[in-house]
Amino acid sequence: MQRIYSPAPAATAFDWADRQPWSAPVLEKTLADAVGFVLAQDLVAATAIPSVAISAHDGFALQAAETLGAGDYNPLPLRLVGAGEHVNPGSAGPVFAGDPLPEGADAVLGLDQGEIRGANLDVATSIAPGEGVIQIGEECRRGQLLVPAGKRLRAQDIARLSLAGHDRLTVRQAPRVNICLAGHFQRDANGPMLTGLVRRDGGEIVATRRVRSANELTSLLISESADLTLVVGGTGYADRDFAVASLQHCGTVAVDGVTIHPGGSLILGESNGRPVMILPGTPLACLCAYDLVAARLLRRWAGRPGDLPYRQREVSLTRKLVSRIGLLEIARLRIDGDTGESLAVADDRLLSSSTRADGFTLLAENSEGYPAGCRITAYLYDEYD
Amino acid sequence: MQRIYSPAPAATAFDWADRQPWSAPVLEKTLADAVGFVLAQDLVAATAIPSVAISAHDGFALQAAETLGAGDYNPLPLRLVGAGEHVNPGSAGPVFAGDPLPEGADAVLGLDQGEIRGANLDVATSIAPGEGVIQIGEECRRGQLLVPAGKRLRAQDIARLSLAGHDRLTVRQAPRVNICLAGHFQRDANGPMLTGLVRRDGGEIVATRRVRSANELTSLLISESADLTLVVGGTGYADRDFAVASLQHCGTVAVDGVTIHPGGSLILGESNGRPVMILPGTPLACLCAYDLVAARLLRRWAGRPGDLPYRQREVSLTRKLVSRIGLLEIARLRIDGDTGESLAVADDRLLSSSTRADGFTLLAENSEGYPAGCRITAYLYDEYD
Repeated sequence: MQRIYSPAPAATAFDWADRQPWSAPVLEKTLADAVGFVLAQDLVAATAIPSVAISAHDGFALQAAETLGAGDYNPLPLRLVGAGEHVNPGSAGPVFAGDPLPEGADAVLGLDQGEIRGANLDVATSIAPGEGVIQIGEECRRGQLLVPAGKRLRAQDIARLSLAGHDRLTVRQAPRVNICLAGHFQRDANGPMLTGLVRRDGGEIVATRRVRSANELTSLLISESADLTLVVGGTGYADRDFAVASLQHCGTVAVDGVTIHPGGSLILGESNGRPVMILPGTPLACLCAYDLVAARLLRRWAGRPGDLPYRQREVSLTRKLVSRIGLLEIARLRIDGDTGESLAVADDRLLSSSTRADGFTLLAENSEGYPAGCRITAYLYDEYD
Repeated sequence: MQRIYSPAPAATAFDWADRQPWSAPVLEKTLADAVGFVLAQDLVAATAIPSVAISAHDGFALQAAETLGAGDYNPLPLRLVGAGEHVNPGSAGPVFAGDPLPEGADAVLGLDQGEIRGANLDVATSIAPGEGVIQIGEECRRGQLLVPAGKRLRAQDIARLSLAGHDRLTVRQAPRVNICLAGHFQRDANGPMLTGLVRRDGGEIVATRRVRSANELTSLLISESADLTLVVGGTGYADRDFAVASLQHCGTVAVDGVTIHPGGSLILGESNGRPVMILPGTPLACLCAYDLVAARLLRRWAGRPGDLPYRQREVSLTRKLVSRIGLLEIARLRIDGDTGESLAVADDRLLSSSTRADGFTLLAENSEGYPAGCRITAYLYDEYD
């Protein structure tokens, strides 16, 4: 079957990435280890939090009505009782943040709102009932949903789950990725690069293997068990570009070429019910195709923010930036403060254009470019976590 | 010695964080494992890259002069020779991306710029000498600095180092952090939360220990060997708030209280020549103080972008946001698209305000707040990597 280069629009590739399903295996984690993972099941509060009224800060537990009229020039004395002791209309007791409110008290005066004089507390501020108190269930009512399944856990979610008595929870495993190096470069730059990229985007590398023939790749793809396979190299049209033929043989090719540049020879498909991407073997093209399509897929699976892993900044172009109609171009930029300048088009062949660059901008397929002075969105290569 | 709450400006705390020195131990990593780490030494190219002229893409190696005048309506035939064979004025040979340019050739015609007819290649485009070729040293000259010491390695840096023949390199170790829980809460929410926060910001937890007395904490601090110690709880003014006294005893307290809210009881100092931060024990205050000051320090050490770990978005306030003069306030926001609304001030007591919130904004010490409709910068709690 004759292959003809007839690339799909970038939107088709993005759509493919957005549609790939994934049945994530789950695993149990301690709370401390679960930050950044996606929760596998709804977690509800077994009890109200707090389960008794507690003090919101260090201070003095008292009855708010007793502070009426108090002020700096009219301190009202209350008899000090011991911590935890019953509080009467005429008394107040020390209490610490998080401690249960002593019986009889309905508010907590701050340390700076009164002064101890001998056996008395001189109240210098009037406070309302409930001030300085966290009431039963204020953090969370019993049975209330604490964190829904599918939410990527933030550190504060973990703290709240801890308060609610949870110690362990089940999360989605990190997406597992296989890398198959099918290129014919003497020295492989793509393997280590892709390992770093996959981890950056929340994935886990299962194996990186060199494959030297169509048969070798086919037998790997047929029994593939990783969530995503990244084949690198072999997207071209020569006999030794066996990756496409292998995928056609044991799976399906959904997209053969994409109107992105660099990286237009990207191939998307599936084998053994799992997505397979064949990335160009030229390192710059590999990086660009990965960032636009593979990162998008992995970040969605891993619950990471954004389609792209980079922070953005608005910059002004110092010179005009020309773009070809029909290609979504990744134009590498030098950025200085809030100005940007694109690298020469000839640099499209060089990996070093991506190491010299501070970031890039995207020029849509229908864009002819931008004039000097235009404000554009830059994605910052250094600003990834 | 009587402690009086006399907080330092937030700028003093930021300055403290920005001044803490760190002699990072180095460790050796494979290229694949080094992405995201900070390179410990300058790396230069031992040879030029490429070391011979190579083809930038798949195509046909030829002499550019032979293509002069070629066009779709004027195809110029060249005799096809085998891959790698010498190319004469009248011949062309197939070549693949990354392959050495055959002797005699000075350009590479793209696959779509000509057509094979029998034993000939019909050239349909005129190209210039050097087109389709990566010349010796174009990626990197011999002796050229590839990546400077102190640079946080991106995946493309790793690829370039691989091309240059590097296999292993030395990077700075992740900052090592000890957590000492000195609070008197029945259930600790801060330990798991801080573990997640430290890892998010590129640090590594050495140990999390519960300390129950001033002596216990003092003996830990005296022999501290982690790069940073986070003590949690015990910032208050009661006898059982022993953390400050411990630090005063075995080290120095540089800042006792900061004009941030929540989190104003934060204490900064050093012991055994290493920075110590005493964070408030109330989880919300702990989170806020960590994010503003500890994250800033750790991210700088780990080479991570930004003072804060969150992506930003400009939002319009749907209601006015009031702020107290003299406090740098962390106002938690609900964000919907590009509008934001602050949570009630009463929520300042509740950890759940940070789990309900989508992010926060910072209100400077001299700010009285913003009117409805004002555009502000929001930091997005979900948008961390």
